[in-house]
Order: sequence, then C-alpha cells, then structure tokens
Amino acid sequence: LSSNHPTDLKQLHLPGSNRRVLLIERPHGVPQPAHFRIEEDARPHPAPGEFLVRNLYLSVDAAQRGWATDANNYSQAVPLGATMRALTVGVVVESRASEVTEGTWLYGWFGWQDYCVATPAAILQPVDPKRAPPSTYVGILGMNGLTAYLALMDIGQPRAGETVLVSAAAGGVGTVVGQIAKLLGCNVIGLVGSDDKARTCRERFGYAEALNHRRADLAEALRVACPKGIDVYFDNVGGTLLDLSLRNMAARGRVIQCGTVSHTSWSPTPTGLRNEREILVRRLRWEGFIIFDHVHRFPAATAQLLAWLDEGALTYEEDVSQGIESAPRALAELYAGDNIGKKLIYIG
Amino acid sequence: LSSNHPTDLKQLHLPGSNRRVLLIERPHGVPQPAHFRIEEDARPHPAPGEFLVRNLYLSVDAAQRGWATDANNYSQAVPLGATMRALTVGVVVESRASEVTEGTWLYGWFGWQDYCVATPAAILQPVDPKRAPPSTYVGILGMNGLTAYLALMDIGQPRAGETVLVSAAAGGVGTVVGQIAKLLGCNVIGLVGSDDKARTCRERFGYAEALNHRRADLAEALRVACPKGIDVYFDNVGGTLLDLSLRNMAARGRVIQCGTVSHTSWSPTPTGLRNEREILVRRLRWEGFIIFDHVHRFPAATAQLLAWLDEGALTYEEDVSQGIESAPRALAELYAGDNIGKKLIYIG
Repeated sequence: LSSNHPTDLKQLHLPGSNRRVLLIERPHGVPQPAHFRIEEDARPHPAPGEFLVRNLYLSVDAAQRGWATDANNYSQAVPLGATMRALTVGVVVESRASEVTEGTWLYGWFGWQDYCVATPAAILQPVDPKRAPPSTYVGILGMNGLTAYLALMDIGQPRAGETVLVSAAAGGVGTVVGQIAKLLGCNVIGLVGSDDKARTCRERFGYAEALNHRRADLAEALRVACPKGIDVYFDNVGGTLLDLSLRNMAARGRVIQCGTVSHTSWSPTPTGLRNEREILVRRLRWEGFIIFDHVHRFPAATAQLLAWLDEGALTYEEDVSQGIESAPRALAELYAGDNIGKKLIYIG
Repeated sequence: LSSNHPTDLKQLHLPGSNRRVLLIERPHGVPQPAHFRIEEDARPHPAPGEFLVRNLYLSVDAAQRGWATDANNYSQAVPLGATMRALTVGVVVESRASEVTEGTWLYGWFGWQDYCVATPAAILQPVDPKRAPPSTYVGILGMNGLTAYLALMDIGQPRAGETVLVSAAAGGVGTVVGQIAKLLGCNVIGLVGSDDKARTCRERFGYAEALNHRRADLAEALRVACPKGIDVYFDNVGGTLLDLSLRNMAARGRVIQCGTVSHTSWSPTPTGLRNEREILVRRLRWEGFIIFDHVHRFPAATAQLLAWLDEGALTYEEDVSQGIESAPRALAELYAGDNIGKKLIYIG
C-alpha cells in the first residue's frame, strides 16, 4: 500500500459523528427503505492493529440483496442490527495497523457508514486517486469491472467473430462486458429494460445491437440479432431471459452465471422451464462466478482495466446519489433498473 | 483396420434375407413396440466403395429415444419408414471398399437390422474379438464405457477423496463411472431405481453407497451419504434428482449432463425448480457431453479401458435379449429400468 500518494487529510470533510445504515429487518425480496435505519453514533477510534476509514464512495450492488437475506447465498447473512455490508472507497484517517498509512485511499469492506474501524483483512485493493478518479474503484476498477473482465475471460473465453450476449447490458457489469467483448472482436448483443438503455449500449458500450427485453417480439429479434447462435451468454439476470437465451445458444456455447436479479427472492425457489436438455444437446458449459474467489488476481486485472482506460478503449458511466440518506432506497432503485452504469453514493 | 484378425465367415450364420426394424411412427415419449415394424427384404449387396456388414450385437441406448424424435436433439431425426438408427457390432461379409477387409469385425452405425450396406464413414471403431468379447464393443468398450470414461475425466475432473454422485448408477454408463471413480480414489455414491440395483452397485461396481431414489427419505439419505457435499455429479437422468443433487453440491462442483432419461419427452419442455441460483452461489460448472464429439479420442480411450479390463480393475454386466424380434420393445424396457448394466440384443 505504500505506493499510494497519501492524501492531505485537511482537505477531507471529517464529520464528528458516524452515521451508519443498519439492516433492521430481514427482507424477503429486494431490501426496501423500511428494512434499514440510519443511526448516528460517536466517531469510533481504532484499537491496536486497526485503522479508521472515512468512507467517500458507497457501492450499491445487486449482490447486497443476497447478503441481506438469510437463505441460499454464498456468504453469511448480515446480522440484523448491524451496519449494511458494502464495498466502499475511503481514506485512512487514523491508523494503528503498522502496514496501513494514514492518508491512504482504500477499496474494501467498510460498509454503508461514514467511518469504519477495520483490520487489513477488510482491504480489497489499494486506490490511487492520481491514477483514476477514486469513484471508479467501486465501479469499473472495482467489483463490477473486475467481474466483467475475469468472468468473461475465464468462463466465456470469447474468440474474435463469436457472438456474445449480455443481460443487464446497461448496468455496472454489462457496460464493461460489452466493451471488452467488442475489443476482443466479438459481435456483442445486449438485453436491457428500456429503449433508452438500448441506445446507450449501442452508442457508448460496444454493443452492435441491444434489445429491450420488454418488446413483444423478443424471441424473434434475438434470433435475428444472433443468426449463428449465441457463443457466450453473460447472464446477470436469470429467469425467463436465461431460458430464452439457452434455447438460442450455439453448440458448445458458454454461459456465465454472474447474477440472478430477475428473481428477487429464491425462497421458495421459483419454477420455470427445465434446462438440462439444452445443456446436453447443445453441449453447453454453464458456470457460476463470484468475484471474491479471485481476489488474488485483482492487481493484474486492475492493471489491464487501467491500461484500457488510459488508451480510451474503455469508458464508463456512473449514477451517483448524494448523501448517506439515499442508501436505504438505493437497492430498490437498482432492482427497478433506474440506473445506467455503476450505481454509487457519494458521502464526502 | 488391418490389425484385426479376419473371422472365418463360414462360422457365421448368414441369413438369406434381411430383417430390418423400421421406425414407422414418430413417438412422443419413449418409443413403444407400435412405433416399429419388422420388415424382411432381400439380402442387399454393396456397390463400389461400400461393404456389407452382418450384425451380431445390436446396442440399445437411451439416446435412441431422442434420435427417433423430431424435436430438441443434437442430430437429425430418423426418417419415418427408415431402419432404426443404432450402433452395432458385426462382421464384414462382403466388401467393395478397398480399406475394409472381409471377415473384419466392426463397431459402427449399422442399424437395427441383420445386414447393413455401409461406407467406411459408418465405422466408429474396429473390434478385435480376440482381445475382448465382441459384445463388449457395444457396451463397456463402446459408447457407454467411452462416455463414462471421457465425460468423467473431461468434465468431472475428479480428485482422490472427492465425492462423486452418479444417477442411473446401475446402467450401461453408470456401472463404468462408479468403477473408474473408485479407481481414482473417490467416494462414489449411486442413485438407482431399486434396492436390488443398489446392492449390485455396492457389491460389484465401486459404489461406497447406492440409494434407491424411490425411498421417502432420499434427501436426508443423500445428505448423510455426501456429508461434505457432492464434488462431481454424473447425471444420466435430469429432473427432480438433478434438482436435489444441485442443492447438495459442494462449492465449485462439476455437473456432467450425460442423459435426461427421467423425462421421456421434451416437447413441450417440462418445468421444475429454477437452478441458476445454485449455479451461481455454489460456483458450479455444468456441462453437456455427447460422445460423438470425441470420436478422434476413441482409440486411446479404448486402450485405457482394455488395460483396466485386463488388470481386472473393471468389470461389466450385460443384459442380453435374443433375436431381432426383441428390438421393438427394447427401448420401453430400457426406460422402465429393467436392466442392470448394458442392454443389448444378440441376433447371430
């Protein structure tokens, strides 16, 4: 972490108290404002081995729905009454951990709150605000961009000339997948929830075509857009769009299961078309991807994303809310599909 | 093919006519006797470039249900009025193809009939009756054994100490999977349709445990048999056993979709539990396997299977019907689960 340029802490607004967004009720589907309460406590102080982060950018991620639920997830649920689990970018304002320097910017598990007392285990990546805007470290350089890049390369293994379909194409992950797949020479098709998003995907994010999944003739439009079948399906949504896509896969196609936001509760398990016959007859490979299995690869992947940003080969969009008061409604907004690009909250 | 020992054709019974099992009606589910008719024609003769095979062993394979159907498969449907597509082992009794010697035994696409006029493109593998009983070339050395070996190694990638679950464990594929997984040091668990099959799987085919899937407490029994979760699920059946197995997979488990016999029609598509959330949160890799994508690997794979047979490391069971008259009912019997091991028909 010593390679970062420490920031002048005097330039930061450092509130005297700590506002925390607590999860107070277990949501069944998407967390709504009523599932949270904002509480104001004294600004905490780190014990030996700990440090204090002043959060500036709070990430809003679809995965937080699962973290708030106590069923069917890959991690322990956020306890009721605890600060909502979240990734953030912040600055170390006080450190009693020898390897963490005051003034350093970090990306990590610091939660939806003004301040976080943390140990180094909570750090995901160092942030260099001279290298890229610090907000990008919760977006295109954070979980979203890293997921887009690593899942596409690892599981999708797209080759030039192949057709790559992406659902939630206008979101924080999809906007990056489209551009990288285009850079790799693929024919990239997006599925989105509005004509406006479709236009943005085509104009800015590498998509040769983007289809509003609400159109009545979606099945036919998808066949027309993917005349040789889909070689890679980067799926952020699951549900009926997944079923339709599987039935349009080319032989030996790859399916990346990165999210399942089309269903907002998995308890009880929703029902739908059986898909094993498609897996068999098309010889598909369908694989789940959780970015936190790949933390050791973040430095190299971030370097690649930064290089593409430097070249102007990648661009991004941020949907920034102001103030921690916007956090309790942020997941409902995200699941409503209001945003284009990365949804985040600035609390500086 | 020259390495085979030509057989003395005088030892063979060579009927003067050719009985063929024709597909005369398109089945909706499993082909029943009424979907076939046996027709007797003159014994055919090969044209230049062709050869004539006298079939001796007809294979009965679950995949034939799909070949007889005109929907949702990986190959063209058998035309109505044509001889039922099947793999067989037979002897070349007349050859006008320079590369095919009379008296040679072959495994190939020679159909449910006494004789087949074929070109060399129909050959899958040479058969050496001095090396192993020729019937084994439609079973443990044929499609079933090759599928078991290649799919398990390619997709399953089992490591010693891992738990491998196999459905249709007592069938032509499952009996081989169990033994190979055991050879690799795995804890092998089978799912079968009767207590008798379960016992046979445990006693003869490498299974540490085999569960009758009809038992009321199957979910609990599966959890007990796989306390650390399932690392590899070799699935021949699909359906609700697949759903249950997915929910008992260990993180980063592999699912081999090799068959889907629990549903006998896929038109219209059956419905069931949505599984994409399991793929995601458990980071599963689920892949379809069709043996005919791997024909170039048959010689090496067969050599490995023969070596294991020679060592006594592999054994097999055959369920042999007599006479071509038994062919029309054979698929109904197979789907009823009457057989243990490879189901085939001897017509010599």
